[in-house]
Amino acid sequence: MSEEKKKGCFTLPGEAGYEKLTLEMAKKWGADVIRDSDGTVLSDEILDAGYGIYSTICIIRDHNEWAKKNQDKLQQCFLMSEPRTAVEGPLIIHLMDGYFEEQFRVNDGENAMSYWQVFDRTTEELLDTGEWSYDAESGNVTLASPKAFHTYTVNFMAYRIWEEISMYNHTTNNWNKEHLMQIDPMYPETREYLLGWMKDWCESHPATTVVRFTSMFYNFVWIWGSDERCRNLFTDWGSYDFTVSERALDEFEKKYGYRMTAEDFINQGRLHVTHMPGNKRKADWMEFINDFVISLGKQLIDIVHSYGKKAYVFYDDSWVGIEPYNGRFEEFGFDGLIKCVFSGYEARLCAGVKVETHELRLHPYLFPVGLGGAPTFMEGGDPTLEAKKYWNSVRRALLREPVQRIGLGGYLHLVQDFPDFCDYIEQVADEFRTIAGFHKEGAPYSIRTKVAVLHYWGKLRSWTLSGHFHETYMNDLIHINEALSGLPVDVSFISFEDVKNGALSNVDVVINAGFAGSAWSGGDVWKDAEVVEKLTRFVYEGGTFIGVNEPSAVEGYDTFFRLANVLGVDEDTGAKLCHGKWTFEVERDAKIMPEGSFVAKTGQTAEYRKGVPYLTDGKARVLAAEGTVPTFTVNRFGKGCGVYLATFEKTTENTRMLLNLIRMAGGELENDLYLTDNVYTECAYYPGSGKLVVINNSDQPQKTGVQTKSGRVEVSLEPYATKMLAITE
Amino acid sequence: MSEEKKKGCFTLPGEAGYEKLTLEMAKKWGADVIRDSDGTVLSDEILDAGYGIYSTICIIRDHNEWAKKNQDKLQQCFLMSEPRTAVEGPLIIHLMDGYFEEQFRVNDGENAMSYWQVFDRTTEELLDTGEWSYDAESGNVTLASPKAFHTYTVNFMAYRIWEEISMYNHTTNNWNKEHLMQIDPMYPETREYLLGWMKDWCESHPATTVVRFTSMFYNFVWIWGSDERCRNLFTDWGSYDFTVSERALDEFEKKYGYRMTAEDFINQGRLHVTHMPGNKRKADWMEFINDFVISLGKQLIDIVHSYGKKAYVFYDDSWVGIEPYNGRFEEFGFDGLIKCVFSGYEARLCAGVKVETHELRLHPYLFPVGLGGAPTFMEGGDPTLEAKKYWNSVRRALLREPVQRIGLGGYLHLVQDFPDFCDYIEQVADEFRTIAGFHKEGAPYSIRTKVAVLHYWGKLRSWTLSGHFHETYMNDLIHINEALSGLPVDVSFISFEDVKNGALSNVDVVINAGFAGSAWSGGDVWKDAEVVEKLTRFVYEGGTFIGVNEPSAVEGYDTFFRLANVLGVDEDTGAKLCHGKWTFEVERDAKIMPEGSFVAKTGQTAEYRKGVPYLTDGKARVLAAEGTVPTFTVNRFGKGCGVYLATFEKTTENTRMLLNLIRMAGGELENDLYLTDNVYTECAYYPGSGKLVVINNSDQPQKTGVQTKSGRVEVSLEPYATKMLAITE
Repeated sequence: MSEEKKKGCFTLPGEAGYEKLTLEMAKKWGADVIRDSDGTVLSDEILDAGYGIYSTICIIRDHNEWAKKNQDKLQQCFLMSEPRTAVEGPLIIHLMDGYFEEQFRVNDGENAMSYWQVFDRTTEELLDTGEWSYDAESGNVTLASPKAFHTYTVNFMAYRIWEEISMYNHTTNNWNKEHLMQIDPMYPETREYLLGWMKDWCESHPATTVVRFTSMFYNFVWIWGSDERCRNLFTDWGSYDFTVSERALDEFEKKYGYRMTAEDFINQGRLHVTHMPGNKRKADWMEFINDFVISLGKQLIDIVHSYGKKAYVFYDDSWVGIEPYNGRFEEFGFDGLIKCVFSGYEARLCAGVKVETHELRLHPYLFPVGLGGAPTFMEGGDPTLEAKKYWNSVRRALLREPVQRIGLGGYLHLVQDFPDFCDYIEQVADEFRTIAGFHKEGAPYSIRTKVAVLHYWGKLRSWTLSGHFHETYMNDLIHINEALSGLPVDVSFISFEDVKNGALSNVDVVINAGFAGSAWSGGDVWKDAEVVEKLTRFVYEGGTFIGVNEPSAVEGYDTFFRLANVLGVDEDTGAKLCHGKWTFEVERDAKIMPEGSFVAKTGQTAEYRKGVPYLTDGKARVLAAEGTVPTFTVNRFGKGCGVYLATFEKTTENTRMLLNLIRMAGGELENDLYLTDNVYTECAYYPGSGKLVVINNSDQPQKTGVQTKSGRVEVSLEPYATKMLAITE
Repeated sequence: MSEEKKKGCFTLPGEAGYEKLTLEMAKKWGADVIRDSDGTVLSDEILDAGYGIYSTICIIRDHNEWAKKNQDKLQQCFLMSEPRTAVEGPLIIHLMDGYFEEQFRVNDGENAMSYWQVFDRTTEELLDTGEWSYDAESGNVTLASPKAFHTYTVNFMAYRIWEEISMYNHTTNNWNKEHLMQIDPMYPETREYLLGWMKDWCESHPATTVVRFTSMFYNFVWIWGSDERCRNLFTDWGSYDFTVSERALDEFEKKYGYRMTAEDFINQGRLHVTHMPGNKRKADWMEFINDFVISLGKQLIDIVHSYGKKAYVFYDDSWVGIEPYNGRFEEFGFDGLIKCVFSGYEARLCAGVKVETHELRLHPYLFPVGLGGAPTFMEGGDPTLEAKKYWNSVRRALLREPVQRIGLGGYLHLVQDFPDFCDYIEQVADEFRTIAGFHKEGAPYSIRTKVAVLHYWGKLRSWTLSGHFHETYMNDLIHINEALSGLPVDVSFISFEDVKNGALSNVDVVINAGFAGSAWSGGDVWKDAEVVEKLTRFVYEGGTFIGVNEPSAVEGYDTFFRLANVLGVDEDTGAKLCHGKWTFEVERDAKIMPEGSFVAKTGQTAEYRKGVPYLTDGKARVLAAEGTVPTFTVNRFGKGCGVYLATFEKTTENTRMLLNLIRMAGGELENDLYLTDNVYTECAYYPGSGKLVVINNSDQPQKTGVQTKSGRVEVSLEPYATKMLAITE
């Protein structure tokens, strides 16, 4: 450890009134940039101290004066009324029942109402518009002559009258401020206003070197309920329901030649969650919105650039339509992408985007309380431990793929009582800069075996599913992505279309992980015989298919798993209740399963399982089981292998198990080069700089050996520690 | 207890060589009839002792001489080859791979082969016959040019060359006897032979008063595998796959005007299990076979009658086509129905059939070992305790509905070492006769509320699903049927057609219980809006719908449970992963849930659950939950009620819970008349005779009170005991 201390690559949240602290911490943490945060300002003393200056703007929500005068240009969405069952006689449906009155206001304008729909949900029949009427005063739709004991719903349009992030902060912190509204730039008047505003803003902020857009225009979907017992009606970080407006719908029709309906969004009340497969109409809509967001986004960025400032985007909140992985992100012209990270996969998500600067916003934020209201920077909090745990998740990902910058957010004054934390961040910043330096001299060593994660969205949803880990933990794939994010393995994300277009020629292992019908398993795409053929051939010729939970599952065929032949495992969804099942012996294989690793039949990621796994022909080797149910099997198929795991839960031990499976698939299981022999540690070797980084992922001291080309090295590590060694090959 | 000891109504298995014991036991147990058993004979001393004589015949399996000469008239079935995946080049499929060679022989006759089919299971396409060929010597089907990496199967015909019950006994007991074959009376030559044989048999058995048919012609389906690790490939007590023959198929085509295909039976390798809904073609086939079995059965019975003997049928083994609940059973002309019983629902199954004499064959059989090979009448066995437990299950059903006779089977000499058992059977026989006597003076008191169990098969599968409890325990409904079998409640079994035809007008409670897609839940019939309407109206107008597991579940609608509106509960199969769920308080209701009762989310009957239950609108009252998942709810709907239970497991406490729900549904929860106040006991009151029977269902002494019209009575009972009281109203 004789690295010279480097500086820079660090963004510090400054705070007016705490100028001394700001500059002290900037020095300690090696900051080169000072930023404001939501709720803080920077004083001239800070602005003039010679640092780069980030300024945060949220382009669609800070214009209440204009919004009040342009209530028809607030953002909108489709909502479905609660279902109501008809008795004899007319049926009255109060549209807003169940919805949070402070978030929505019915849009009953003539054009909006042309999109409204009433469905008989008992028969799934759309009613003629003559069969119902709307009374604006009561907010009721009345069906004069419904069928008795059928259930009806109304799809209607609503303005969103309280910007959701502001609503959340407001409600959580018991604020008593004016509700911020979000305006919709789909309307030319809004665009004109915003472009002017952007110009003015640049004029009036000469000190700002980087304009940090808190994303662009459309928030992820977050629908609130009227009852505190069910406040959250729907959240999806990846869906497009909040991009709807009459104008957008009309423009779409002009461009695509067909008219989207309310039901295209409402989808029988399910909406289109990212966890489920999409369809052509949704894809068209996403493309339409993406076009728009790029087009206007670029105009705003051009203005920023014309003032000699850089434009970064904070990938959160109103990110919808940005899509850093659809191959068009570069069209915006952003100079940087900032991502707040709890997890390793989020670091990889950021690092993999094609943009000059990638920056991570580390947790914990400098807030009194953290996620779920637990104390952080206040009595009872332990921000240093929190920081260690988050860094522990993120660090292993950063060993694999570099980002250029890290930073913090929040109220700097809160760190004053936590000198520990200040010291730890200093250490993290130094570590970060050192590792970033290694990357500059060449990529880290990876094993030969290449992995592709296969799901409905493919590359578009690289690394992430739809949101943070704690929002998506019930999907096996987020556990797998998190495990993969720090493994010395090349990983790509491919779709079923990619499979048909030859993507399998570049990979050794395909992972398909999710419950039946989900986007992550694939759903109906598994009806495509070509997909089945290509994957079967892939395995037969030597590849490995790792199927988790309900891989390749779809109804309608002789097997529920379409690759049951490859896996040697299928699932009985009930129709084979009377079919005898193979008995087997469990052969736990310590080369694959380190102590403490497991594959469970039940658990959070198995909640949506449709049946009971069983061996198809008794030939698969069973590595783990629960009772008579196989939960982990390995099946030879041709020259390749089908691996089945009933679930995958991300733990340190299971992460190593996954690595071992990948190594086995590639015939590398006997090659321990640049792998730690203690599963609670990991390492990365940088051939360009000859540096080996060894990390302790546990809260206990660990010793580990690492095989290098010049022999085995031994390393001892304190809890969560990082060590860097020079290796002469 | 001053009942005079009655005699009769008891069938004793006699045994040559044990004449003294036979007559002693006949006296002790009050037998009026002596029978032979499989493997025993009756000597003249027994035959001449003045008892009625039952003789057992199995009409289709004791004719090996004839069978050997008529190998083309052995019984048959369709089998599907194991699936095989094609690579480049031809694909060879060995038909018998995986099947027990001693059970099946390929039928490659020309007519049989006209029914063979080869399917591409990757695309579910039927191949032209020109695309494959069969080589009899190797037993292989070869596809010259299959599509690479598609999977193929062959549907072929096979003779069954070892009668399955004989095969089972043979294999289990390591017999070394000739394999018995079953001949198919679908062929005129077989019929002619059997009718002649029956006549001869009657001539040569003058002492026989009752011919006991071990069912009729076709066994329940039992397909064995070649590997001991998976010996049982398929068992279903209710399916018709073993009724197939070329002749039957040809005759069917003549009668119904269309040709059944192999795939109509094979059903993608799933066959048609009773636990899943059927279809029109299966219904036609069942009708066709039923017609045939009645027609020939009647001829045989007529012969028996012509010799002055009675004809009883033992409802087991080769029962297929008999169908005691399809409304045509009387056409046979049987004088009696005998059912072996482990459980209460089997006693009700027997008792409910329209025939003069109902007889129960009690367990344990007089065999050295019982079910699963555990010792019974040998060292280590406790036949008395076994008898108590079985009688405990059966007795409560017999309190509700009478049968005329009981009896035992097996080798009488085995009881010699078990005097306890002999005493206990004496007591059981006395109890039985006493209770039967009460029934003769009028039906027992029932509560007012009437229950209908609703499923795909309706009345046809009254009380039973498809086999014994231990074969069907993974279905909630068998637990419910068992619970209902001894409750003081009128129960009927109705189908969805019955619902459409007005069946709901006669009932107060509808129970629908099963996993989604099963026959017990209903499957696709729930797509019928009329069914939904009728049930919704039924509840709205005051009825109660008790839905268990995945009631009314079907894909394709806004809710997974079609009666989600009635229940206030639906299930999220994954598409609502991002939808917030209602929180709730659990209000356990002691009036409904006695101590020890429970509703679990997981467990054997929940293995095939498709998703996670949740409250739809937060209004249902939650009586039990696991974590955040409601497992037991009660929801007001109109004047009626929707009750949801995630599972139902039959225990003494849960049986009382079910009764309480039924009483609640009928507004009778406050009326304790003729109910015990200790849930481990039950009672039946017979107004005609003024007798009250109180039983202890537990292995502990119990005290209980019973409310009668003339006040409360107190009863103390030894474990498993029965007490009879005279009540003056």
